[in-house]
Amino acid sequence: MPVVPVERGPVDPLDRDGDLPLHEQVERQLREGIQAGRIPAGAALPSTRALATALDVSRGVITEAYGQLASEGYLAMRQGAPVRVAAAVQQRPREPARSLHPTFAYDLRPGVPDLAGFPADAWLRSLRAAWRQAPFATLGEPDPRGLPQLRETLAAQLARSRGAAADPEHLIVCGGFRAGFVELCRLLARTGADRVAVEDPGWHPARLAIEQAGLGVVPVPVDADGLRVDALHDVRAVLVTPAHQFPTGATLSRERRAALVQWASDHDALIIEDDYDSELSEQRPGAVQGLAPERVVLLGSASKRLAPGLRLGWMLTPSWLTWPLTTTRAVEATGGDVITQLAFTDFLERGELDRHLRRMRTQYASRRAALLSALARRLPQLTVREAPPAGLFVLAEGEIDEHAMVEHAAQHGVGVEPLGLHRFEPGGSTGLVLGYGALAEPALDRAVELLSNMLPNAPSQV
Amino acid sequence: MPVVPVERGPVDPLDRDGDLPLHEQVERQLREGIQAGRIPAGAALPSTRALATALDVSRGVITEAYGQLASEGYLAMRQGAPVRVAAAVQQRPREPARSLHPTFAYDLRPGVPDLAGFPADAWLRSLRAAWRQAPFATLGEPDPRGLPQLRETLAAQLARSRGAAADPEHLIVCGGFRAGFVELCRLLARTGADRVAVEDPGWHPARLAIEQAGLGVVPVPVDADGLRVDALHDVRAVLVTPAHQFPTGATLSRERRAALVQWASDHDALIIEDDYDSELSEQRPGAVQGLAPERVVLLGSASKRLAPGLRLGWMLTPSWLTWPLTTTRAVEATGGDVITQLAFTDFLERGELDRHLRRMRTQYASRRAALLSALARRLPQLTVREAPPAGLFVLAEGEIDEHAMVEHAAQHGVGVEPLGLHRFEPGGSTGLVLGYGALAEPALDRAVELLSNMLPNAPSQV
Repeated sequence: MPVVPVERGPVDPLDRDGDLPLHEQVERQLREGIQAGRIPAGAALPSTRALATALDVSRGVITEAYGQLASEGYLAMRQGAPVRVAAAVQQRPREPARSLHPTFAYDLRPGVPDLAGFPADAWLRSLRAAWRQAPFATLGEPDPRGLPQLRETLAAQLARSRGAAADPEHLIVCGGFRAGFVELCRLLARTGADRVAVEDPGWHPARLAIEQAGLGVVPVPVDADGLRVDALHDVRAVLVTPAHQFPTGATLSRERRAALVQWASDHDALIIEDDYDSELSEQRPGAVQGLAPERVVLLGSASKRLAPGLRLGWMLTPSWLTWPLTTTRAVEATGGDVITQLAFTDFLERGELDRHLRRMRTQYASRRAALLSALARRLPQLTVREAPPAGLFVLAEGEIDEHAMVEHAAQHGVGVEPLGLHRFEPGGSTGLVLGYGALAEPALDRAVELLSNMLPNAPSQV
Repeated sequence: MPVVPVERGPVDPLDRDGDLPLHEQVERQLREGIQAGRIPAGAALPSTRALATALDVSRGVITEAYGQLASEGYLAMRQGAPVRVAAAVQQRPREPARSLHPTFAYDLRPGVPDLAGFPADAWLRSLRAAWRQAPFATLGEPDPRGLPQLRETLAAQLARSRGAAADPEHLIVCGGFRAGFVELCRLLARTGADRVAVEDPGWHPARLAIEQAGLGVVPVPVDADGLRVDALHDVRAVLVTPAHQFPTGATLSRERRAALVQWASDHDALIIEDDYDSELSEQRPGAVQGLAPERVVLLGSASKRLAPGLRLGWMLTPSWLTWPLTTTRAVEATGGDVITQLAFTDFLERGELDRHLRRMRTQYASRRAALLSALARRLPQLTVREAPPAGLFVLAEGEIDEHAMVEHAAQHGVGVEPLGLHRFEPGGSTGLVLGYGALAEPALDRAVELLSNMLPNAPSQV
């Protein structure tokens, strides 16, 4: 067994002016040394007297430190034997923290809003206001559905801006679309559902969430009028994006909206309405939920409307779903920071969200125009079927090798998503889903230029 | 079918100075009227000309409004026929938002910290600082494990304050103990585990979380040295509170700590260490996780240390668990507001948490003393086995009718929890788990007096 030399010792000189007691300084140095493997398991430590002398402290300091570390299990002390690092201690080296997310110089992935446009001052104002208004009790265990005042304000907002039948008692604040959607899927699974129908093409991450909840995915085709309701088969639930189909951009037609609600009551099925970006479009139909509040869950979030990082979302649920969801949330203590909820309440009450959305609509419209003209000039191989202009992305279809295109784009610092990523059944057209929310007009043009460089006889190559 | 009279009309006079276009004002009034049932399904609306005249607006305003509502599905328009409210529309009256949580004039439930002691100014300072430091990109889709800078800072904090082997790469920021614990249980269930061992008596909500994840609960007895490790049977995981057993207050002895780690490696089992309040005790052993980072998940949260409403927690996981948990979180987009995470990072870096905890330790110690003396004076029927003073609660045992006592207490505005709530096997001693975190000394005395009033020949009755 190695013996840690006393003269240098396992402990560096102590900070006698620090506010940390000497024995605690010794403890920490030894603990960290042991954890980092600098002091190996089984190694003998200097006697208390020897280390006390080496550090020029009273012997009691070392006795205290050894005692504490022994009580924590780092040291083994036996009468008459030298103090040793416990053999049981397992050691692991440190690594620095990393983030998992890819970053692109030009991020054309759909659904990334303009983060630089985030109304930081207004939000900070609302954070401050949240403090002034909140009684301390608000910092206690929060209502699993979210703060009542937020549910009141948000319900009114959804009724106004989305034409939703918004009852605060059936409004649940969640961590965003996926967080809420997974809760729904798990509940459906517990109540005997085995499959959820989705739009094809449709938003890929939703598929992962459904499968993670242990449910099967039933793809249903989409056309220019949105979900092919006539193709809906025997499922207990369907996920649909009526206001702005992802990724085709289609709007669910009036006839289809009626048919969908009819289908749901005929089959006693649940419609899960993903309302991710409606207010970002000039002309937008109200939520289907307003037509049939007992058949539809309306899911929305601040991710596209403000910023994904806020992790703020909402579920407007049929009354029969509210309690199962609430009790589940209560057991798991699901829910977000109450201070963020208070800030969002104030933010809505001041009309800051409406103000922000109005500004963003104009900005996104001009970015969309810039992207379309860049595509027309530089990538004539790709065509955008002009659905009513809406939201944060366009679908650019064309005869391309999606995989090669995405690879090439990434190599040149451009982030794009292939249409194929969001297809469930193989085949169909190829193309790219291009988001224009995050980039200013010149950057959009540059990004498209970089994309075009790989395609044969694109104008910029001629 | 009823016809809505024109003279009064379904629409109140419009606000001509408001910033809302006239047609939108008409839309909203009609939409809300239909949803609230004031305008019944099937009802015929006035002709565009008639309503325009009644409201003294151009006919185009009404045409626009009817068109929008028709496209949203609220109105059915057929050539030559009057415009009618769609038959499909389902209507539901509003209720005001309610909160689910009981409130007590004197809250003696364990685990409620002193919310009035929350360092509001320091937290607001950290919120402001978070803004100054954060690049806008931080507001994008966050790392599912939590922001890297928070994981770095929190890891260092856990190494220092809890003697944990804290690697930021294996630290996951979650929404509190239960949120993280349920994620773990679900993962264990997916990987074939069927049961989780728990301390008996032990924290009741953990049982609900285990069962909700579809796992069985195996109660293991607890004595003065904490979990009876020798009674651990063939399970894949055990939930334990080594630093401060809930609700007995025992500390897991040094021998038991070693035996627990040994058991885990012998049985290839996982130790889930619930480290809910250690820093609130004067003398506290380091985390068991530090002894065996690949065998232990260390779970902690800000709930007792700061406030439950922050919904801030952390999991320090064995490296083999980090990726399964992370991918699950990525699919479900689990995670909290990045601004809260940034604020917490700054809060930790300024040493505000340590400062707060130091202040709280003193305050809780004196509240504990006040509760104990009140119990001795007013409720001699109850005895507190003096484990080393720690945390936020005491277990007061005695021959009482727990149910009647809790009922009586609630009727008098006192919130208490019966020991039986946290027992898994029937039998054993009776008593109350009394929290003293939330009440000042005089209130504690008053609360105990209210409790004592129901017991026969309590001194205050003599």
